[in-house]
Amino acid sequence: MATKQILIVPGDGIGQEVTAVGKKVLDKIAEKFGHTFTYDEALIGHVAIEATGSPLPDESLEKMRNSDAVLFGAVGHPKYDNDPSAKVRPEQGLLKMRKELGLYANIRPIKLFDELLGASSIKPEILKGADILFFRELTGDIYFGEKGRKNNGDTAYDIAEYSRFEVERIARKAFDAARTRRKKLCSVDKANVIETSRLWREVVQKVALEYPDVEVEHQFVDATAMLLIKDPRRFDVVVTANLFGDILTDEASQIAGSMGMLASASIGDGTGVYEPIHGSAHDITGKGVANPLASILSAALLLDISFGMKAESETVINAVDKVLKAGFRTGDIADANTPADKILGTAAMGEEVLKNI
Amino acid sequence: MATKQILIVPGDGIGQEVTAVGKKVLDKIAEKFGHTFTYDEALIGHVAIEATGSPLPDESLEKMRNSDAVLFGAVGHPKYDNDPSAKVRPEQGLLKMRKELGLYANIRPIKLFDELLGASSIKPEILKGADILFFRELTGDIYFGEKGRKNNGDTAYDIAEYSRFEVERIARKAFDAARTRRKKLCSVDKANVIETSRLWREVVQKVALEYPDVEVEHQFVDATAMLLIKDPRRFDVVVTANLFGDILTDEASQIAGSMGMLASASIGDGTGVYEPIHGSAHDITGKGVANPLASILSAALLLDISFGMKAESETVINAVDKVLKAGFRTGDIADANTPADKILGTAAMGEEVLKNI
Ligand SMILES: CC(C)[C@H](C(=O)O)[C@@H](O)C(=O)O
Ligand SMILES: CC(C)[C@H](C(=O)O)[C@@H](O)C(=O)O
Repeated sequence: MATKQILIVPGDGIGQEVTAVGKKVLDKIAEKFGHTFTYDEALIGHVAIEATGSPLPDESLEKMRNSDAVLFGAVGHPKYDNDPSAKVRPEQGLLKMRKELGLYANIRPIKLFDELLGASSIKPEILKGADILFFRELTGDIYFGEKGRKNNGDTAYDIAEYSRFEVERIARKAFDAARTRRKKLCSVDKANVIETSRLWREVVQKVALEYPDVEVEHQFVDATAMLLIKDPRRFDVVVTANLFGDILTDEASQIAGSMGMLASASIGDGTGVYEPIHGSAHDITGKGVANPLASILSAALLLDISFGMKAESETVINAVDKVLKAGFRTGDIADANTPADKILGTAAMGEEVLKNI
Repeated sequence: MATKQILIVPGDGIGQEVTAVGKKVLDKIAEKFGHTFTYDEALIGHVAIEATGSPLPDESLEKMRNSDAVLFGAVGHPKYDNDPSAKVRPEQGLLKMRKELGLYANIRPIKLFDELLGASSIKPEILKGADILFFRELTGDIYFGEKGRKNNGDTAYDIAEYSRFEVERIARKAFDAARTRRKKLCSVDKANVIETSRLWREVVQKVALEYPDVEVEHQFVDATAMLLIKDPRRFDVVVTANLFGDILTDEASQIAGSMGMLASASIGDGTGVYEPIHGSAHDITGKGVANPLASILSAALLLDISFGMKAESETVINAVDKVLKAGFRTGDIADANTPADKILGTAAMGEEVLKNI
């Protein structure tokens, strides 16, 4: 029986709708297992800019630092996407949060619930049994290097950077995880062209010496983008840089049937942050149709990783599994065979999961 | 009846085997249509390093400049991949060729031959009718910016750069192509994080004003990596930066059943270069099993784009189609239903295509 302080940071778009459901699931778990979870909320992204002028107000950051874990939604707004010259952007809040909290490891498990075999655009016989654990570096690379304009604004530049220790610490986390799984690690880079990738490969090769029991391969990012679809089962743990991880994990969401199913954990020096990998999805915001399962599964990761509550975490995952087995779907994971009365909105899907906890 | 000088640049690995077949196809076309094609050969990549110390000897570059078109194979060798500190690398030859010849537009058509619907890991009902034309910028971005080490080698950096005119010229090529197709253009960037992407989006938005008849959308690269698999038919022309194009076109090869089917044209200020998008594939080099169809289809692109020979180009494509219809396959595009006697090696597959020209 533990007492924990959880910060809910819904952010933008469907972030609001899905974290509301994630929170209910945490509440139900606290009740069932006799824990005391207290909650606070904080602003980030577009909603924070509207309210305070800043995409990550100091108050939000302070609250994050003082919480035991953060359940996060999403940031982003089409207004800024279509205005490349905007100086203040929702995403700056997300990047600042990652940097300030030292969240250097973004963990994205890609695992297909058996019931969703049909929901993917990839053939079931290619997918069956696929189970990949991504480690995406989250506080370096072209995301955080100097960027700007020169030649009167006619030339834009971005600097990608990695230091040895940054690669080392994420590599160690990935190798450690591989040890608890199928003992295979694939490190993804573009070492045939990019210098940061050559440093990346050098360091991973060196760290690998400490893990002789783990089988290591190095793949180029272009080949990996192809292999993930051609033969997803060949991968166990994948470790890669920030930008490549961004691209490859979105792609890999198709292995899990839908982006609406994928949770992630961002961990590092302090408070851990748990979030769906889907974004703010303004096209479906406010319609009550967003899939809350990624936020619910993010809550499961939170329980497991930040609180060490394995049984609680498994209870959540099993509840999701049962709901899927009972045939319930949100629109994104429904297929031609799903009866109309089994297609649920955000809140109703949340209720089904709660019933099974 | 034309006279043309074609340079064959096999490069490394299976590049040798597949360009030999591509050349035979060009020969047969010349014979059938009464053209005179003369050939020369040049070195690039690992084989060039072994022979001359340079991945692109001046002599090769000179020959390229003096040819009417280049049929290119691939570069790369595992020796360098596993040695991140190597100073001279095969890929430098490829990049230098692209830069020196001003090959700023890499055109990669992704189209599934009907007969290969079953060969992809993606479901046939998702794929049927997919037809995407990629324009990948090829002489800018992180590929060509300054790169190096600092802090005693402990930090690596790469500078990504784009200037307005570089984005403009590739965007125009893509919009022009969209006009001759389904009039849809998707520009892919990461403008929510990267400054070069913001310049990219700004310029594409501006060029779009000149093409009011073309429907434009802007997508983030992570979302695109997902959408290509989820719903490939939503794309017509896609235009993107060098690195994103590298990753997305390899991924998109799965839409065409296999990387072994995909040809590309690199064009710009001078001689055009035509090459498969597959690489040197050292795992199958020398075994005589490489799929030559990408090199054959590259020859078809060469005839069309560099020589303006539409009928000749279509003759090649139709021959490939007939061979596939007759049930012949190389290993990479065979499936469980392919009878063993229809699975051909590189040379035999080439012969079947020749018979149909
Ligand atoms: C919103 C965006 C800045 C972010 C990223 O690129 O990291 C998102 O795509 C993600 O993957 O969390
Ligand atoms: C070999 C490599 C440098 C090259 C690239 O990244 O451009 C290849 O992947 C390609 O797509 O032509």
